[in-house]
Amino acid sequence: MFESAELGHTLDKKTFDKELPGLRAALLDAQYELVERRGFQVILIVSGVDGGGRRETVHRLNEWLDPRHIETHGMGTPSDEERERPEMWRFWRALPAKGKIGIFQGSWYSDPFIRKVYGKIKNADLEEAMDRNVRFEKMLADEGALIIKFWFHLSKDRQEKRLKALEKDPATRWRVTERDWRHFKLYDKFKKTADRVLRLTSTAQAPWYIIDGSDERYRSMTMGRILLQVLRQRLDSPPPVHSIPGLPSLPRVDENNLLRALDLSLSVDKQTYNQKLEQLQGRLAMLVRDPRFQKHAVVAVFEGHDAAGKGGAIRRVTGALDARYYQVIPIAAPSEEARAQPYLWRFWRQIPRRGHLAIFDRSWYGRVLVERVEGYCTEYDWTRAYNEINDFEAQLHQHGIIVCKFWLSISKEEQLERFKAREKIAFKHFKITEEDWRNREKWDQYEQAVCDMVDRTSTDIAPWVLVEAEDKQFARLKVLQTLCDRIKQAL
Amino acid sequence: MFESAELGHTLDKKTFDKELPGLRAALLDAQYELVERRGFQVILIVSGVDGGGRRETVHRLNEWLDPRHIETHGMGTPSDEERERPEMWRFWRALPAKGKIGIFQGSWYSDPFIRKVYGKIKNADLEEAMDRNVRFEKMLADEGALIIKFWFHLSKDRQEKRLKALEKDPATRWRVTERDWRHFKLYDKFKKTADRVLRLTSTAQAPWYIIDGSDERYRSMTMGRILLQVLRQRLDSPPPVHSIPGLPSLPRVDENNLLRALDLSLSVDKQTYNQKLEQLQGRLAMLVRDPRFQKHAVVAVFEGHDAAGKGGAIRRVTGALDARYYQVIPIAAPSEEARAQPYLWRFWRQIPRRGHLAIFDRSWYGRVLVERVEGYCTEYDWTRAYNEINDFEAQLHQHGIIVCKFWLSISKEEQLERFKAREKIAFKHFKITEEDWRNREKWDQYEQAVCDMVDRTSTDIAPWVLVEAEDKQFARLKVLQTLCDRIKQAL
Repeated sequence: MFESAELGHTLDKKTFDKELPGLRAALLDAQYELVERRGFQVILIVSGVDGGGRRETVHRLNEWLDPRHIETHGMGTPSDEERERPEMWRFWRALPAKGKIGIFQGSWYSDPFIRKVYGKIKNADLEEAMDRNVRFEKMLADEGALIIKFWFHLSKDRQEKRLKALEKDPATRWRVTERDWRHFKLYDKFKKTADRVLRLTSTAQAPWYIIDGSDERYRSMTMGRILLQVLRQRLDSPPPVHSIPGLPSLPRVDENNLLRALDLSLSVDKQTYNQKLEQLQGRLAMLVRDPRFQKHAVVAVFEGHDAAGKGGAIRRVTGALDARYYQVIPIAAPSEEARAQPYLWRFWRQIPRRGHLAIFDRSWYGRVLVERVEGYCTEYDWTRAYNEINDFEAQLHQHGIIVCKFWLSISKEEQLERFKAREKIAFKHFKITEEDWRNREKWDQYEQAVCDMVDRTSTDIAPWVLVEAEDKQFARLKVLQTLCDRIKQAL
Repeated sequence: MFESAELGHTLDKKTFDKELPGLRAALLDAQYELVERRGFQVILIVSGVDGGGRRETVHRLNEWLDPRHIETHGMGTPSDEERERPEMWRFWRALPAKGKIGIFQGSWYSDPFIRKVYGKIKNADLEEAMDRNVRFEKMLADEGALIIKFWFHLSKDRQEKRLKALEKDPATRWRVTERDWRHFKLYDKFKKTADRVLRLTSTAQAPWYIIDGSDERYRSMTMGRILLQVLRQRLDSPPPVHSIPGLPSLPRVDENNLLRALDLSLSVDKQTYNQKLEQLQGRLAMLVRDPRFQKHAVVAVFEGHDAAGKGGAIRRVTGALDARYYQVIPIAAPSEEARAQPYLWRFWRQIPRRGHLAIFDRSWYGRVLVERVEGYCTEYDWTRAYNEINDFEAQLHQHGIIVCKFWLSISKEEQLERFKAREKIAFKHFKITEEDWRNREKWDQYEQAVCDMVDRTSTDIAPWVLVEAEDKQFARLKVLQTLCDRIKQAL
């Protein structure tokens, strides 16, 4: 794997100087095309051994390309803010938008890699982390990103020589740290781990390029030419095609399905409601003030038929909470900023820190509901989304976040009543739009999509709760009750 | 995930009887189209809880379809023969050819699943096994296979009722075993593990379908209709397209590369050769007779330029071995049988049992050498092959198999000499063909492919050894020496 990179490649100054202007011009051309078209983003990982030229490469890239369209991320130790969130949160935040180039010196590889070298995790843990990376990059690639991963290598001899040379020169001495020498002593372990990591994560969609880092000119020229080739190839090709067909729903063999099986006659009288509401709100307030809740957080998702009473249910939840600790996030059609990112990006941004609650009024499930039914994305897009969403929620769960998902269900007749009422009452008029009526016409398709969604994303770690919402009061109590139970269970 | 499958779906006899003939006719039509076109194979996994109807489903399938084109695999505990090989070997052997339907009752899911339920492995191990399955199925799908995975589910109540009912009836009593009741006691653990397994392995290319198993008619009709839908969808669509471009090679920045860096002047005189040859052959013979070798096996791969002396080197190896314990496998263009299978299939078949050696004269690397250079496969095919091959070899390594890969390298001039000599000497004439001359014209392209191959598949667990073969004697000694060292190291 490192054979080519230990040959001691070199490039003489004359050739380098002759070829550089052409390369730079071509790279700039490609970058401007990327910027203008905004069709995809470039994610560039710069990794490798100490002294292999990572820093200089990042410098070169910012020199050769227009730095206004480049975002460089150092990504060292996570900040306090970052540690409060799942591991991948900070990388999601740093993803470049379409048209941009994001350079990651330090990435989703760094932490598990170093921990393995230092013997803090086992092989199985490393493999799990690498599989997570493969899935993450697959999702990014499926969302259109171009991923280029550079690994700068030095043989053991050359690394030693290079560190010593840097140390000798007063101008560069500061760059060699204790940590570098400590790493050097672990060279063999480092190389063995790199071999494993590169083997596990070099995929057709996101391959590693291993580059001999010993000669500055060779290294830069090689990196530049690979970048140019891959970028040009993508710019000059039609957009990637995925001919994987949409996932079939369970065939309708009988008339039974999850939504029709709900007992919508469930209701509660006013007095019981008032009494229980107070009781449950009190319980919820206590639970989130429990010191043990500081190790957790809540992500609550509210989906449901139009006019099913999501807003009212959410207000009964927030009524129990201190405004400093929760946020209600209404989800509408994505903004231009969000459309320039993978679809999960705007939800990752809103993941709460520990001890906090995020309440989503509609959510990432739009992908497999409205986007599927209305054809806003391809069949392959919503098909893979089930998997991606499960992955996303598993990461939240792993971090201790309690994921509660509610589907508020009403009958088609009740919806009609509520629509009519909204149209009549002036102060509720804003709540009913043409779109609501249009959605209503596709009732059966939405029903199918909801059943598929529950079948494919209701998991042990993030179950769906179907809420009988024909009676609003009953629905609100069930939501509160579920939230309390789930939090209690997690503490 | 199991919500829909716990609703207690049913189908009345009248509707069933009315719909069945049409379904069966349509399924048979689809099957015959599959058989005639031989464009892809169907891999059908039948899994789920005890009493959920797996057995009956397999029975149904064999009744409804033409059983001559179905292969049903029970896949219980591995046989002695199978235990001698890597875990996936028996599944590779059982893969259906294009045009066939392979039904797996018991599959690559069963063993890790059961071991997790019984607490014999940890979560991380389960996740690793499931990632292996995802990679395996991705490869199968990329090779064209249609994968359909059924999971038959029963709620806890229904499972208990069903087991009791089966036990009551003298005609079915035999079917309920101690094991079934033992499993039932683990129902909750079983379901939790299933939730995890299905979540991790339900991908767009190989999704799970969870079916309520409680009512025989509902279950069969649902299964039949999903099968029909998925099969028809595939038969009626153009073949899947992958627009992922081929992996770029390292740009040629200087004139140095792995093959050119070899010192082809290395040679050895006749006397030293004879002496060393005897010595190394003796050492090799001793090593494979070492009792500890019975826990290992050797897979040796010989690749090289045409006329580089692979045959001669192989004979010097086998000269040291007892014919009962090794096999030389010459690899030519794939047979019709092999072409109806994923490309790695014919190599998996030849994996040696413990204590044995398999020597491949050319190998699976044909995919990234001749098939790449001659355009016998798509760019996406050879690009993903690097990864698939690394995966394959990692599985061999995990099983204790020592994987030795030799590239025998000669200069273009030396090759010309040898070609000419072969044409002159009558008994060597058969060794030189038109194809050899044609390959020679593409020397540079092959050189590039070899360098890429080494860079992308030479790993710690299965390194490439580049052998300077301008002097045949030197090459033979280096091969023997390497083999001895690698075996020694593993013992």
